[in-house]
Amino acid sequence: MNNQSADQTDLTPRIESVLAEVARGEDAAIRKLLDLIAIPSVSSEAPGSEGIARAAIWLRDALEDMGLQARIVETEGHPVVLGASDGDGSRPRMLFYGHYDVQPTGPLTDWTHPPFAPTILDEDGLRRFYGRGASDSKSQLWTFLEALRAWKTVHGAFPAEIVVLLEGEEESGSASLPDFIARHRDDLRCDIAFICDGDMWSREQPAITTQLKGLVHEKVTIHTPHSDLHSGYFGPVAANPIRILSGILAGIHDADGRIAIEGFYDDVQEIPDKMRDQWRHLSASSDVTGGVSLEGGVIERGYSTLEAMWGRPTVDINGITGGNQGPTGRSVLPGTAHARLTFRLVAGQDPDLLRARFHAFVRARVPAGCRAEFEGEGYGPAIVLSQDNPYLHATARGFEAEWGNPTVLKGTGGAIPLVHQLHTALSVDCIVVGFILGSDAIHGPDEHYDVERFGAGVRAWVRAFAEYEKIE
Amino acid sequence: MNNQSADQTDLTPRIESVLAEVARGEDAAIRKLLDLIAIPSVSSEAPGSEGIARAAIWLRDALEDMGLQARIVETEGHPVVLGASDGDGSRPRMLFYGHYDVQPTGPLTDWTHPPFAPTILDEDGLRRFYGRGASDSKSQLWTFLEALRAWKTVHGAFPAEIVVLLEGEEESGSASLPDFIARHRDDLRCDIAFICDGDMWSREQPAITTQLKGLVHEKVTIHTPHSDLHSGYFGPVAANPIRILSGILAGIHDADGRIAIEGFYDDVQEIPDKMRDQWRHLSASSDVTGGVSLEGGVIERGYSTLEAMWGRPTVDINGITGGNQGPTGRSVLPGTAHARLTFRLVAGQDPDLLRARFHAFVRARVPAGCRAEFEGEGYGPAIVLSQDNPYLHATARGFEAEWGNPTVLKGTGGAIPLVHQLHTALSVDCIVVGFILGSDAIHGPDEHYDVERFGAGVRAWVRAFAEYEKIE
Repeated sequence: MNNQSADQTDLTPRIESVLAEVARGEDAAIRKLLDLIAIPSVSSEAPGSEGIARAAIWLRDALEDMGLQARIVETEGHPVVLGASDGDGSRPRMLFYGHYDVQPTGPLTDWTHPPFAPTILDEDGLRRFYGRGASDSKSQLWTFLEALRAWKTVHGAFPAEIVVLLEGEEESGSASLPDFIARHRDDLRCDIAFICDGDMWSREQPAITTQLKGLVHEKVTIHTPHSDLHSGYFGPVAANPIRILSGILAGIHDADGRIAIEGFYDDVQEIPDKMRDQWRHLSASSDVTGGVSLEGGVIERGYSTLEAMWGRPTVDINGITGGNQGPTGRSVLPGTAHARLTFRLVAGQDPDLLRARFHAFVRARVPAGCRAEFEGEGYGPAIVLSQDNPYLHATARGFEAEWGNPTVLKGTGGAIPLVHQLHTALSVDCIVVGFILGSDAIHGPDEHYDVERFGAGVRAWVRAFAEYEKIE
Repeated sequence: MNNQSADQTDLTPRIESVLAEVARGEDAAIRKLLDLIAIPSVSSEAPGSEGIARAAIWLRDALEDMGLQARIVETEGHPVVLGASDGDGSRPRMLFYGHYDVQPTGPLTDWTHPPFAPTILDEDGLRRFYGRGASDSKSQLWTFLEALRAWKTVHGAFPAEIVVLLEGEEESGSASLPDFIARHRDDLRCDIAFICDGDMWSREQPAITTQLKGLVHEKVTIHTPHSDLHSGYFGPVAANPIRILSGILAGIHDADGRIAIEGFYDDVQEIPDKMRDQWRHLSASSDVTGGVSLEGGVIERGYSTLEAMWGRPTVDINGITGGNQGPTGRSVLPGTAHARLTFRLVAGQDPDLLRARFHAFVRARVPAGCRAEFEGEGYGPAIVLSQDNPYLHATARGFEAEWGNPTVLKGTGGAIPLVHQLHTALSVDCIVVGFILGSDAIHGPDEHYDVERFGAGVRAWVRAFAEYEKIE
């Protein structure tokens, strides 16, 4: 079902007039979007780079043109563009996040279409445009800005008090963002945050990410009481840290794919039945891994692939290093070996407690005379958007009205540091949405998007705005 | 017991007169030895280095002075100095091996005594001399050369037909030696080879290494059907090659330290009772590991430390590499992981068969859809000198006569590529001996040796020569 045939009974006059404005302004919006894509705001450039600076100025001007107070805020890295509407606090305050930086192009010879001279081509029944950032994420941020512009043009005011946060470092790790958030808590204060850098479930089906797993990084090093030795002499009698570490790692999972660390599942909140039902339906009708072969993998018994990916806690071994790393054989019995692991947590699990349980698991398996050393890096608990959040349902309804298909409530095993930071620093719920498709070639050559999807995204936001107005 | 009190009934006039010549010539021999140590024949220098070239010329001249036909044979790397006596084939032909190259000095500031300006100091009741190569291995080669010189001086002929092989690349891997041996089979033809680069059991007790373990290098790589993935997304469902590899490595040894590879022990020859008895005696009276802590090690049940080190086959994990090797966390699920192992074999075990058994062991543990890839490097079977070899017993008797203590018949877990090469190319038995002590600081700063031990070594050879004459 497309927008023409969407449920007409839901179209209040407030929406109809805005959708008409969206249609009227679409050509201009696309022209401006292509101008933005043409600016090479490559994230990996040094601070002060011309492309980043031009994009920030361009966006500040665009925010001002649509009636927001806008400014460029310098950081240690690339600047943030911040916009805000007037407001006396009588209406809800909504934050919209996007990022204007883009991945490097890689070799230009890999591109059929130039990355920073975007053109529109009619292909596969779509008006497709190519360029670095076309999908990730300049089109994304431009959907909510264009929806806000159209709404204000028609109604003379934004649908709520508005904060716009446009970041310039997302593609290079968002290093300056925590500091920025800490310094601008007042500017960022809001009732709900919309993080628009996500993807659709499919071209026909929108999605909202409501479950983010928690993340714990651990490095474990096994120390023996000896330094590197000749393995010919001492291999048969001295401790081998690779052998010890291998035994520990091999014991983390049982044959059913369950984690054998004592107490690991104690506080785990099971996947809600309603969500599980929806995920089962998705699994039955979709390739949930995008073509990645799972052969040889062990999925936790009792759970589907999607449930394991989105709703179950995991321990992943990310790296292991010990002894001879050279291209040829060398008879070394190393003194130490180490592994890097990540724990992906679900709601209910406490990172500190799990870390302690992992340490106990390892220490119980280190022989006398040897020892385990642990180094932890950044971590945080899982974030699960309450199923009662009214903006979640309003957004889902708005999107559903645009595409005519139910909005998928997704989980993800990937971290979104921004969401953790906003959630922690501002205690605000985040609605993670977006219109990227796996086929957009984001981060690769010939990244692209299409006019049709852009228009649908803008309309979806307009429909969601109307739903937000209904929230008591 | 020292030489003055050695069993006088064994001293034939043929020995006595030679020992007198050794005593008479000792000062001159030490002076010449110090001259040789003063030449910086550093093994890691590029071919053509001045130190290596000077040492080769010096040694060729020394061989000629003592009545051998001598020449310098160039190789791809450092030259070999080759000496040979006259001979019509009527007497046994004996090869003596030593090496004249030395380890780099490392930082000169770590040396109290200059490495290439050797001086003699009276210390701890010894006349000790310091210098790079003082122990490893210029004093070693000079013991047999001085013994041969004294014997010829007294008796007008060497104790046998003599081949002297002085290598210049031992400390950097003997890369040119296999080719040299292949090209000079006729020159190297002999009935027995004495490899003089080994160590004593203690200052009072000589040793001969009679058991060399075989060596198989293996690299195993676990390939999953996927390339590197985001572990947050795919960790719970796709194959983790580190987890698979850890499971395989952890399963190689059982809790008793026995190797669980099927058939691994099938053809193993047990340690002969007589040797086992001697090793038990040594274990009871010595620190067999030189102070290395064995805490956390698992010694094969039923065997002593020394038996495991010298007489039992092993599988050692030398290195492991997979996924994130970086200094910080990264959520990668790698596509591959690999480990490097060495197998140390004892008599009876066939390297090819064991390799095949290991491959089968691994393949049985690789899940469907993944695969194991193997790369083997150089390998060879164990070499065990027959307990019936007459030169073994003659040498042991000669050495015992010098020190008054039984000669230890050692094993070693370390490879001596030269022995494998000579054994393979010339089908010749090798008697591995030498007078290095663990306290000589070989390869380190302030390497040293002493006049007393040098004299004893020369006399030990003279006594051994007399024993060789008795062989039918």
